[in-house]
Amino acid sequence: MPVDLYASSPEFPQQFAALLSAKRETDADVNATVAAILAEVRARGDEAVVDYTRTYDRLPSLTVETMRLSRETIDGAADTVPAELMEALRAAAGRIRSYHQRQMPESYDYVDEAGVRLGSRWLAVEAAGLYVPGGTAAYPSSVLMNAIPAKVAGVERLVMVVPTPDGKLNPLVMAAAREAGVDEIYRIGGAQAVAALAYGTATIAPVDKIVGPGNAWVAAAKRQVYGTVGIDMIAGPSEILVVADKDNDPSWIAMDLLSQAEHDTAAQSILVTDDAAFGEAVKQAVEAHLQVLPRADIARQSWDVHGAVIVVDDLAEAVAIVDRVAPEHLELAVADPDALANKIRNAGAIFLGRYTPEAVGDYVGGPNHVLPTARSARFSSGLGVLDFMKRTSLLGCTAESLRAIGGAAVALANAEGLQAHGQSVALRLNMAKGG
Amino acid sequence: MPVDLYASSPEFPQQFAALLSAKRETDADVNATVAAILAEVRARGDEAVVDYTRTYDRLPSLTVETMRLSRETIDGAADTVPAELMEALRAAAGRIRSYHQRQMPESYDYVDEAGVRLGSRWLAVEAAGLYVPGGTAAYPSSVLMNAIPAKVAGVERLVMVVPTPDGKLNPLVMAAAREAGVDEIYRIGGAQAVAALAYGTATIAPVDKIVGPGNAWVAAAKRQVYGTVGIDMIAGPSEILVVADKDNDPSWIAMDLLSQAEHDTAAQSILVTDDAAFGEAVKQAVEAHLQVLPRADIARQSWDVHGAVIVVDDLAEAVAIVDRVAPEHLELAVADPDALANKIRNAGAIFLGRYTPEAVGDYVGGPNHVLPTARSARFSSGLGVLDFMKRTSLLGCTAESLRAIGGAAVALANAEGLQAHGQSVALRLNMAKGG
Repeated sequence: MPVDLYASSPEFPQQFAALLSAKRETDADVNATVAAILAEVRARGDEAVVDYTRTYDRLPSLTVETMRLSRETIDGAADTVPAELMEALRAAAGRIRSYHQRQMPESYDYVDEAGVRLGSRWLAVEAAGLYVPGGTAAYPSSVLMNAIPAKVAGVERLVMVVPTPDGKLNPLVMAAAREAGVDEIYRIGGAQAVAALAYGTATIAPVDKIVGPGNAWVAAAKRQVYGTVGIDMIAGPSEILVVADKDNDPSWIAMDLLSQAEHDTAAQSILVTDDAAFGEAVKQAVEAHLQVLPRADIARQSWDVHGAVIVVDDLAEAVAIVDRVAPEHLELAVADPDALANKIRNAGAIFLGRYTPEAVGDYVGGPNHVLPTARSARFSSGLGVLDFMKRTSLLGCTAESLRAIGGAAVALANAEGLQAHGQSVALRLNMAKGG
Repeated sequence: MPVDLYASSPEFPQQFAALLSAKRETDADVNATVAAILAEVRARGDEAVVDYTRTYDRLPSLTVETMRLSRETIDGAADTVPAELMEALRAAAGRIRSYHQRQMPESYDYVDEAGVRLGSRWLAVEAAGLYVPGGTAAYPSSVLMNAIPAKVAGVERLVMVVPTPDGKLNPLVMAAAREAGVDEIYRIGGAQAVAALAYGTATIAPVDKIVGPGNAWVAAAKRQVYGTVGIDMIAGPSEILVVADKDNDPSWIAMDLLSQAEHDTAAQSILVTDDAAFGEAVKQAVEAHLQVLPRADIARQSWDVHGAVIVVDDLAEAVAIVDRVAPEHLELAVADPDALANKIRNAGAIFLGRYTPEAVGDYVGGPNHVLPTARSARFSSGLGVLDFMKRTSLLGCTAESLRAIGGAAVALANAEGLQAHGQSVALRLNMAKGG
């Protein structure tokens, strides 16, 4: 059973701190194995990638030539997706694209009152890699959420890697990749795929940034290649915090809590309510749903071990609790969700009102579903267009404008004991003075 | 002597690749020591911080009560800064503030044609920590460059830590902190200071993000606390690439190359020119400058070991070279710097024309001097206001708009085998249909 907490109890601060600090991640330490795989791919390139893939994905006939999926293979798989699903995928892609287009940053370039030219220029990274897990964790929605922002940003070469254990392609993943505009797809996975993307091989040109979810090997590989390439955040188990008053249907709220719990036994679902009886009703509804859900075993473990129901005297108290938890997903199932949302600082995504279950945002809302977990919404953001871009600053002085601002640079450089810095300005100031 | 490369030589691709991959970082592996310090501060809080500081900074009389610098102590030191320097500091702060104010991102909130409420809300992190090295690497310009973007972003609590070995305060650092609006200053440093910022102690409340340069211990500590808090990039040794035609004064260009070389023996300075004789003249000017520069020993080591002069047939060839190097600093000392700049994708900062030595940007240009090193300008940006903010997405459906978009979510959720996701939407659709 989930833990029951009462915010007015004297033990609450300590119980809440314990809930916050409980460890949920269970990834094995695979750093040494991964380091060996990376070194091997770096040394032997394509051959190493093929060797690992033959073994791990049970593809004995794979060759360097067949690593890349042909347009025909992709289309052949994608075209088997039923029309209704294809339509749902297109609807999702359209909404995600439209939302992310508003994230495009503005470059600027101006001359200030001292005559100094100042600029800031955003450009896309040249090439990005997208890791897509195979098997049960192959989520087409995740392909859309990672690939579309890259293409909106203007990434010219978007390379997807996806393992195909026993040769099986996921048609919906292929359709999502095609819909999102992925440029190259390789049927490889694990640390060897991350290595190929980061270091490049004869067949796979290296990328500048790698994104996408993966298992412990993939996460470790991404951490190890960071620096050689950029990476996205390493996501922890999923989380939801639902703030709900008694005017909700307990069955709806229970299903929302379970929609995170069914992801992973390490996921966390927290209900904050101002009505203890409503909290009890939600718990009963959870039990009823668990009788019929296909992923009930996973969801039950998550709910029993990591779930919590926190009863507050007044919903205004929820603000401080939310900001401490800094949840990945925050549902505000209350009469005036905006009033509450405006007071909250830390959340990856906020779902407003009784008709906005978090899951609608996982697929078709428009905002990204790759969001900061494990309290990192305090300092980081969901995936977006900016993750596939970088900014270059521009500075331009004339002889005159350098004379206007250069003296301060010389003074500060000399005070810091960096005379070459100072001299590089002073030489030009003398010239500027002399004519 | 620096390496001489000719872009037209058949050996160039291999020589250039070797230059790119040469290891310049020399940080010792201090991970185990640092992990022990972090654990100690986490367990014993203030007492551990004071114990380490007494030893490492030779401050035997330090107590928990005197860790934080009082307003009087800060003012007492800052007020000893000569008026001319104070004016230079204020001029720099004003220009940096003005440049960074343009980086403020826009939040938005709209209702789309399906009736779905969509938003993106940027907020500052609540509290940020700024590490400032003590001793010879104490740079007041670095205080401005790290603190001003945080304050422009709206960080409410900006906490600075700075070791004061033997009790010595750097007046200009104190003046810079005051000018930039730092809220709290503690006279502590090393891994223990990073631990105090990340985990908090009875005296120092924890922060959400830690920025600022530091030695190997500080860098290792930042890496280890990442996740508990956000961190900025871990900067490598400084780099400059200067593209210069023969119409430059070799003495100026030589000084620009040395302004990076004097930072650190691991720094790298590269000249790209279309005139071999000009390249020779620059090398001679470097030798002449090295006779008189106070930091000549450091600069010579950097230049001799990591420096390079690359001769191209045509300056247009510089574009591909620059994009491969992805330099932290790029000077374009040519007749038409904009034409060249517009073709370049990868550089942390670009300095346009013959009157824009990189050093003017280190102090008073306006753009940030904390920039991506070691080729990471391919995928990352200089420090800025966004580094102290995070974005929350907003999604709001009504019964009607959920009916418009929810069907696709149910279809995709079921296709992914996540029935609780699908049901959390479907329950509400039934209700919406039923009325």
